Amino acid sequence: MTSSLRSLDHIKSPVASELDSFAAFFKQSMRSNVKLVDTVARYVVKQKGKRIRPILVFLAARTCGTINESTYRGATLVEILHTATLVHDDVVDDAETRRGLASINAVWKNKIAVLMGDYLLSTGLMVALRHDDFFFLKVTSDAVRRMAEGEILQIQKSKELDIDEDTYLKIISNKTASLLSTCTEIGAASVTEDAATRTSMKEFGQNLGMAFQIRDDLLDLTSRSSILGKPVGGDIKEKKLTLPLIHALKTAPAKEAKAVVKLIKKGAEKKEITEIVAFIERYEGLSYSARRAREYAEQARQCLAPFPPSDAKQSLLDFVEFVILRDK
Amino acid sequence: MTSSLRSLDHIKSPVASELDSFAAFFKQSMRSNVKLVDTVARYVVKQKGKRIRPILVFLAARTCGTINESTYRGATLVEILHTATLVHDDVVDDAETRRGLASINAVWKNKIAVLMGDYLLSTGLMVALRHDDFFFLKVTSDAVRRMAEGEILQIQKSKELDIDEDTYLKIISNKTASLLSTCTEIGAASVTEDAATRTSMKEFGQNLGMAFQIRDDLLDLTSRSSILGKPVGGDIKEKKLTLPLIHALKTAPAKEAKAVVKLIKKGAEKKEITEIVAFIERYEGLSYSARRAREYAEQARQCLAPFPPSDAKQSLLDFVEFVILRDK
Repeated sequence: MTSSLRSLDHIKSPVASELDSFAAFFKQSMRSNVKLVDTVARYVVKQKGKRIRPILVFLAARTCGTINESTYRGATLVEILHTATLVHDDVVDDAETRRGLASINAVWKNKIAVLMGDYLLSTGLMVALRHDDFFFLKVTSDAVRRMAEGEILQIQKSKELDIDEDTYLKIISNKTASLLSTCTEIGAASVTEDAATRTSMKEFGQNLGMAFQIRDDLLDLTSRSSILGKPVGGDIKEKKLTLPLIHALKTAPAKEAKAVVKLIKKGAEKKEITEIVAFIERYEGLSYSARRAREYAEQARQCLAPFPPSDAKQSLLDFVEFVILRDK
Repeated sequence: MTSSLRSLDHIKSPVASELDSFAAFFKQSMRSNVKLVDTVARYVVKQKGKRIRPILVFLAARTCGTINESTYRGATLVEILHTATLVHDDVVDDAETRRGLASINAVWKNKIAVLMGDYLLSTGLMVALRHDDFFFLKVTSDAVRRMAEGEILQIQKSKELDIDEDTYLKIISNKTASLLSTCTEIGAASVTEDAATRTSMKEFGQNLGMAFQIRDDLLDLTSRSSILGKPVGGDIKEKKLTLPLIHALKTAPAKEAKAVVKLIKKGAEKKEITEIVAFIERYEGLSYSARRAREYAEQARQCLAPFPPSDAKQSLLDFVEFVILRDK
């Protein structure tokens, strides 16, 4: 398949005006009468990300029907929940920056950041509850739970250093694909009651999420740090075993694999990380993972087959390409 | 009014068997297929508290009608949410212990503790969502939001060191009374559709919560540290201005009040805390606060007037006494 990489701006163009209205709705939803809460909330809004999740909600809704008010609430709910998990992530990772600005914990300390995360989680729920969007709540609560479980399973496995491909797929399904499939499912559910349509969109998001995370883990090994904005091989350093390494360990002779695991266990530094990346390449971990990502991308495309052609559908297809071809 | 202090065991006796069944239900609700999540969840269950919130749910339900399955789900929801906020609290306070056992963050580090808090929050929601207990969700999401807002307002005010009685009442209404009123409202809502009954029970919990927190803040100044299990005057040290101090600062001559604020601002140590407690006593901060706590207790009792006599109602009345007379 030939492919041209569309920019995110181009991809979101069919729902550009909706995204503008969303920005105001999102900001308004987080307002608080407590001055400090409001100050931090306005700061959170300034740490604007790529808005990938709202884009997916709106594109999925437009592909399945006519965007309406509940679509906006769905987009707001997922973006608020995503933001809450980022605020908590920065606490646990002791991160100093987020999206080019200082992190909440860096400016206001951990206490405010943890509480602010809880404030955002409950605020997101209340946006949905106020309008009886119970279906949205079921889908998102399940996603938040799976995200926490996925992250904890990853930590468990990074201690044991014993992980097979199935476990890896379970981790990324929980920690990444769950929220992306929530976005596309909610987008569909906001415009149609049809179960088959909702399922197709949910599965599209699921496969897209799997491709996204496999690609992300691959980039951690292959991108230049100047493009990535963080050191190459960070996952190895943190003892996170991702697909390229898992495949190489399985393919390599037992003795060689054992030596690599030992190296990771003791804490690999720059030079050793380069050696491990070479090991992964030698045992086809990179090419295997790239193929797996393309397979998920293909499954994602197939989930869209039932939908008639439209600008929004084309953007979802371009999104799949974007995920597969992006270099950061 | 004469009063004899009933033990918590005596108070909970009308719902003792329900609490036993609850314990199994609670434990079961937190199970996970992820080994590490399950291990931490089982540890959380072992850090058993006084179960004050489930006790309130069951007693309120029994006072208003017949306990049923949704009462159990309501009790589980509030206890899981309460547990989640404690796990997060321990992270932000860097606490080493919780209920006589090492804290989650002390055993498994902050990362696991924050994620586990998020896991518990979403698990609590899902218990309610699975059975379409939407009313429970509205009430509890609002409570979680108010708790976070109340805590952040308190932090804001501890920086400004400028707080009046109204602001103090708003803080404790949000951070403490909101969850206790949620317990009694959910208990009532699980057994009756009658709006007046639900409101009476909600207001009972609200007033009980206010009395509880004022008493708690009073004990921080008057209890011996051997009884309290933590140093006396901890709030002053942390620059938390509570009702006894707020009242004394208002009553004392401006110059004297200003000197005390200065002392707190620079960080009061043991000897200075003793001086400040004497200042509070001199300007009737302790007696005034005790009177305010008794007023809220009296309002709580009045909320129960419409209910016919029963063991459960008597236990709620004993609970009010317990809150007012407890020494730790």
